[in-house]
Amino acid sequence: MAEKGRKLLVAVDASDESAYALSWCLNNIVSQQISSKDTLILLFAKTPLAVNSAMDSTGYMFSSSIITTMEKYGNEVAQSVMEKATRLCKDYINDDDQVKVETLVEHGDQRDVICEVAERLKVDLLIMGSHGYGLIKRAFLGSVSNHCAQNVKCPVLIVKKPKSEAADH
Amino acid sequence: MAEKGRKLLVAVDASDESAYALSWCLNNIVSQQISSKDTLILLFAKTPLAVNSAMDSTGYMFSSSIITTMEKYGNEVAQSVMEKATRLCKDYINDDDQVKVETLVEHGDQRDVICEVAERLKVDLLIMGSHGYGLIKRAFLGSVSNHCAQNVKCPVLIVKKPKSEAADH
Repeated sequence: MAEKGRKLLVAVDASDESAYALSWCLNNIVSQQISSKDTLILLFAKTPLAVNSAMDSTGYMFSSSIITTMEKYGNEVAQSVMEKATRLCKDYINDDDQVKVETLVEHGDQRDVICEVAERLKVDLLIMGSHGYGLIKRAFLGSVSNHCAQNVKCPVLIVKKPKSEAADH
Repeated sequence: MAEKGRKLLVAVDASDESAYALSWCLNNIVSQQISSKDTLILLFAKTPLAVNSAMDSTGYMFSSSIITTMEKYGNEVAQSVMEKATRLCKDYINDDDQVKVETLVEHGDQRDVICEVAERLKVDLLIMGSHGYGLIKRAFLGSVSNHCAQNVKCPVLIVKKPKSEAADH
């Protein structure tokens, strides 16, 4: 590890694929040398609820209490994902001084948020999981990792979760 | 670096983008600890000459001496790429015992070769450069890195060469 003080951006969400990508990164990329001082930035994108836009134009579809409930649920998901991710980091990193772990929650579409933050913070590496959808699902949903790999200027590491042994046999 | 004896597959070709990706990998991924014993596999795909298939059906387009010349040229490119890549590795790796560097030249389309070798050798990580073609060129050529990221099961690291400072100003 010749470089010092690298910024590693890890896109996290509630999926197992994302947790696997973070573990892999901690195991293989994050330097365990105190001298290297990597900073790990955990990024969660809070996708705006699709209903919001429908509601803005009609005005009567959802009462404000439902919106508040949804907003609260979104915050709880963000908090839960971040807690899980930081716990994972603590399990891997032996000494707290060694690697600095930061969390960042941003509003917006996952693809835009990841690309925008990677540029803004001038990170050295973007790490993300891959859902490995089938052809049909990918055609509809597109691939977040694919989009980011094409649009982000820094190196991008895409980690796929291996299929479970049970599924292989 | 918790894992030991990792196999890192680096796709190399004659481009600057590929040399940059290899340097980045040596600088950021390859462990400099003797105990880790990473193996770096440099892979070059010798693309079959497009004229070969045209020639097979018509039979008279190229004389055998031209074919021999082309074949020889292909071998020289492969050899030159590998020499450049192994020299780059030696510059980064302080001790020869530390990291094992292997070279592999295979015949076939770059995309197929990379995916096939990654599976066959059960590598831990695939590293490749990205040419960052514009929209139109990408539409015709497709993106090798994109194809491999979608089809290879192991983690894939795509390294883009930053634009030169001269181009930015």
